[in-house]
Amino acid sequence: MNAPARPETLEVGYDIPALPGMEEAEIQTPCLILDLDALERNIRKMGDYARAHGMRHRVHGKMHKSVDVAKLQMELGGACGVCCQKVSEAEVFARGGITDVLVSNQVRDPAKIDRLARLPKLGARAIVCVDDVANVADLSAAAERHGTTVECLVEIDCGAGRCGVTTTPEVLEIARAIDAAPGLKFAGLQAYQGAMQHLDSYQDRKAKIDIAVAMVKDAVDALKAEGLECDIVSGGGTGSYYFESTSGVYNELQCGSYAFMDADYGRILDKEGRRIDQGEWENALFILTSVMSHAKADKAIVDAGLKAQSVDSGLPVVFGRTDVTYVKCSDEHGVVADPDGVLKVNDKLRIVPGHCDPTCNVHDWYVGVRGGKVEVVWPVSARGKAY
Amino acid sequence: MNAPARPETLEVGYDIPALPGMEEAEIQTPCLILDLDALERNIRKMGDYARAHGMRHRVHGKMHKSVDVAKLQMELGGACGVCCQKVSEAEVFARGGITDVLVSNQVRDPAKIDRLARLPKLGARAIVCVDDVANVADLSAAAERHGTTVECLVEIDCGAGRCGVTTTPEVLEIARAIDAAPGLKFAGLQAYQGAMQHLDSYQDRKAKIDIAVAMVKDAVDALKAEGLECDIVSGGGTGSYYFESTSGVYNELQCGSYAFMDADYGRILDKEGRRIDQGEWENALFILTSVMSHAKADKAIVDAGLKAQSVDSGLPVVFGRTDVTYVKCSDEHGVVADPDGVLKVNDKLRIVPGHCDPTCNVHDWYVGVRGGKVEVVWPVSARGKAY
Repeated sequence: MNAPARPETLEVGYDIPALPGMEEAEIQTPCLILDLDALERNIRKMGDYARAHGMRHRVHGKMHKSVDVAKLQMELGGACGVCCQKVSEAEVFARGGITDVLVSNQVRDPAKIDRLARLPKLGARAIVCVDDVANVADLSAAAERHGTTVECLVEIDCGAGRCGVTTTPEVLEIARAIDAAPGLKFAGLQAYQGAMQHLDSYQDRKAKIDIAVAMVKDAVDALKAEGLECDIVSGGGTGSYYFESTSGVYNELQCGSYAFMDADYGRILDKEGRRIDQGEWENALFILTSVMSHAKADKAIVDAGLKAQSVDSGLPVVFGRTDVTYVKCSDEHGVVADPDGVLKVNDKLRIVPGHCDPTCNVHDWYVGVRGGKVEVVWPVSARGKAY
Repeated sequence: MNAPARPETLEVGYDIPALPGMEEAEIQTPCLILDLDALERNIRKMGDYARAHGMRHRVHGKMHKSVDVAKLQMELGGACGVCCQKVSEAEVFARGGITDVLVSNQVRDPAKIDRLARLPKLGARAIVCVDDVANVADLSAAAERHGTTVECLVEIDCGAGRCGVTTTPEVLEIARAIDAAPGLKFAGLQAYQGAMQHLDSYQDRKAKIDIAVAMVKDAVDALKAEGLECDIVSGGGTGSYYFESTSGVYNELQCGSYAFMDADYGRILDKEGRRIDQGEWENALFILTSVMSHAKADKAIVDAGLKAQSVDSGLPVVFGRTDVTYVKCSDEHGVVADPDGVLKVNDKLRIVPGHCDPTCNVHDWYVGVRGGKVEVVWPVSARGKAY
């Protein structure tokens, strides 16, 4: 079910939106496009930052679901591997040649646990999170059954309010159980504060991470006192990585959105009060959309609606233009206010999606462009891998 | 790129969530499931209604994007064919054996027009909408180039505020141009009032359709006066079909959501003030989701988040339960309030998505269940066909 590796055998406009070598004007819409120059600059910048701060960067593959983007992040950004959220996603990355894969999530279903334990047979280090001591025996049995090692991080809920335990005694209990279980290796802690990443104010975000750092430090120290060293203390996103990097406690970042950016993330403010998409990161991901109707003088109807993006975090923003505004999204259409009637049928717009992760998840392909030409067409390798 | 036709060759939990013959308990989550009994009852009911009212039913394939569901709608519900929104979708239906396909949308891009004109070579009647006289020459040239006939409906915007013209003189101008153009056939009118379908009140919906019917009647009469007969006057959705069916003007319905239902549609009220999912239609579509963490006593974390559904029309609703509530949706997780702690890890829930169309569009498969068993696994044949 993965998009095949040889896009040149596919039919443009049916299977695939473009082929390498095409002019940008020939791309079939709606589709995702990547500004490769911007993408590479974002990747190098985060890589340089992590290196300068002595941090590993385990890039969040659930954002792009792309083996090709992950490899670029390893090559240009020095990433140590990927994290992702589902076992089926992890399998895509492992089969694609990524050798260090963390499922930064709980795996509880017996069939999924079995697949997870087989991940090392695909050539990848397999790491998973645990927030319930009852999970340990199942993971251990599966690893023993397959003769593999599954590394386990205890997940701390440091504010996201989803998975994870909230006290050091719980961390210790689970870590001890992992340490004692055959086939498992206690590898450290997962502590990603997802809920604060999108707070606008830098100071508000810092206050939340200060709480997280205190929780994590307490757990690391208590584990150490019992002889349990944390090889990995992982967390940090695009809205917080500078806090974790200077915490003295975390040693691994898990940033995802920095590479592509989106309209919702772009609105948060850096230390100087400037939007992060106005200097810190560049918009590298766009939905390319065409005007398909202009029957009313003041509005253009474009071909990117809810089937081409997720609007959970707000509407997309037309890139680089102040004269037209994407104002409404229905299943198949976007309504673009065009008060001066500047748009014509078949004009193309680049729009920045509200939220990159679930938007990428509805597409099969990334069309990578540079200098007005299609340079690469990459499959969204793990699209639909929700299991 | 279509899901292959032989699911039994695929790996459960990686490529596909289940195989026919499995127990419901073995299905890998998150995935879409169809209650086949409920689906068939919905399909028969709408078919009986259309037949009793002398209406053709051109089912809206953009909702389910499934050749199998469309064929069931033709077989059990007497549907005349499908409508859909994109040329690539139309190709999927035509390649799948549906012989009467309306693209109920504008097609303006030259490559898409060319594909549309080749649709009859796939064995299907090809019908398309037009809202701009400038489109006619392009459609005509393509039909002539391929030696095919493209039937054209003039699209009237009767309140949705997207594509379509708003006056009878505009309708006449476009219809005359179509009628005069080689390779094209003037076939009638498209007038779907999408914006009113989700108004709660039956009377409010009726008031909107009264306006639409008046616009359409005026156009039909004016066309007739010029000798232009409308073979097709198409429109009507799940929230309005009884109005179009008794209008004396429309002769074709385009209902989609009635077959599956969703949480947002379910809330609208019938003539007696009863929710339409409490008697008129049954919920046949669900996302099956599993509890993957219960580290906090009062909330369960489930595995269906934004990658498994669209929340544009609100959060999903847990089906058949009042003790637990889906309260928050993030990329990979749903938070289910569980005040009494009744859920356990690996428990499965059926949730009704807020909006069926964009939810189906993120999945590869429908798992059809009956009597606790998986009976069929159907590909979401046109998933990702946004071109």
